[in-house]
Amino acid sequence: MTQQTRLVEVRQKVLKQNDVVARELRQGFHDAGVLVVSLVSSPGSGKTYFLERILTDMAKRHRVAALVGDLATDNDAARLARSGAPVKQITTGTVCHLEAEMVRSALTDWIKPDVEILFIENVGNLVCPSSYDLGEDLRLVLMSVTEGEDKPLKYPTIFNTADVAVITKMDLAAAVEFDSNTAKASINSVRPGMTIFEVSAKTGKGMDDLLQLIESRYASAQSRRSVADVE
Amino acid sequence: MTQQTRLVEVRQKVLKQNDVVARELRQGFHDAGVLVVSLVSSPGSGKTYFLERILTDMAKRHRVAALVGDLATDNDAARLARSGAPVKQITTGTVCHLEAEMVRSALTDWIKPDVEILFIENVGNLVCPSSYDLGEDLRLVLMSVTEGEDKPLKYPTIFNTADVAVITKMDLAAAVEFDSNTAKASINSVRPGMTIFEVSAKTGKGMDDLLQLIESRYASAQSRRSVADVE
Repeated sequence: MTQQTRLVEVRQKVLKQNDVVARELRQGFHDAGVLVVSLVSSPGSGKTYFLERILTDMAKRHRVAALVGDLATDNDAARLARSGAPVKQITTGTVCHLEAEMVRSALTDWIKPDVEILFIENVGNLVCPSSYDLGEDLRLVLMSVTEGEDKPLKYPTIFNTADVAVITKMDLAAAVEFDSNTAKASINSVRPGMTIFEVSAKTGKGMDDLLQLIESRYASAQSRRSVADVE
Repeated sequence: MTQQTRLVEVRQKVLKQNDVVARELRQGFHDAGVLVVSLVSSPGSGKTYFLERILTDMAKRHRVAALVGDLATDNDAARLARSGAPVKQITTGTVCHLEAEMVRSALTDWIKPDVEILFIENVGNLVCPSSYDLGEDLRLVLMSVTEGEDKPLKYPTIFNTADVAVITKMDLAAAVEFDSNTAKASINSVRPGMTIFEVSAKTGKGMDDLLQLIESRYASAQSRRSVADVE
């Protein structure tokens, strides 16, 4: 057995264990009517600023909270906390993704049982997070206009394991000669029919549509719980 | 032993094997007087465009070649080949970094023994590539002005394992309100005294200084070989 093969085998075992924990988390969230939305992207695609805007807006209508993963520093938690929502940093050390167990540990004794929408900002990475289910209902993959239109072709797995694609920093689109049609064609070629949003968290353009999507998913999460309560 | 511990142990064995191959590669490059320069960064920080400009310029004076790693597609090799230099794509599948063995395999029966400067563009990732020595003499870590000034604080290892930092897309600095002093302070706090270049591959600004650095390193590589020949 080569070392590479052994590494793959151990990885598969870790993944299997992760899926067990993720399933338990998801069941717990469903039972409580909590919507969980996670964000994945390359470092620097604007996840934190985007999430800060979402938290600030949604906190007016909902009890929201956020977990944020990084290898080091709690800079992002400090930025997100400006929204007024409870925020907790998970520092992963050398690990390039969040795992379900890290989410479970972070939640223990932290947020109140009455939270309605929990956001999870993953470590900035277009490879590692794709294999780890965190028990979320909705996974957003972000790419910024500055990254190049062919990112989905180069990192197909992260787009295949997400539910919705969000193109960020649209305010810079003209400056970097971003070709929207090419970017959308790239996404569609790895994930035909994927829902795509184009937003600028800076100007607010396109953010309303995304907020509506989250609101409607939250309504579904609530109705799921109502049914469970009756049963 | 936890699964995480086991994973770490297997990883260490793989790394050890990588270091053996990297050492052999480095010795081979030194003996031949070849300078090897590698590039690491987040996806979308402009590595490929930056390298295309360097290859185009240096090909006028030197026999240059490039290896480029990506999970999927040979888009980057096609872009780099516009420089006229020999270019080979390494597709890594699900692996988020290049390894020394991939470099060795790619070189076998490929570039002529008379190549003078070999560039290696790693997979876009701020975590995985940091642990893998590829036998290079000079490792450049790139970060673009659009990524946020605190990237070095969040990804200290990739800055610690590189030799030189390059801040790219300086032509966008004003549009994204990039704070150069904060970015440099971030780099300095994880790697005091690190050499930092600020460039725009698009306008060419700052590129001359970098080309000079590579030229002077190439001269050193050549003189090393001359000494070896005499010995």
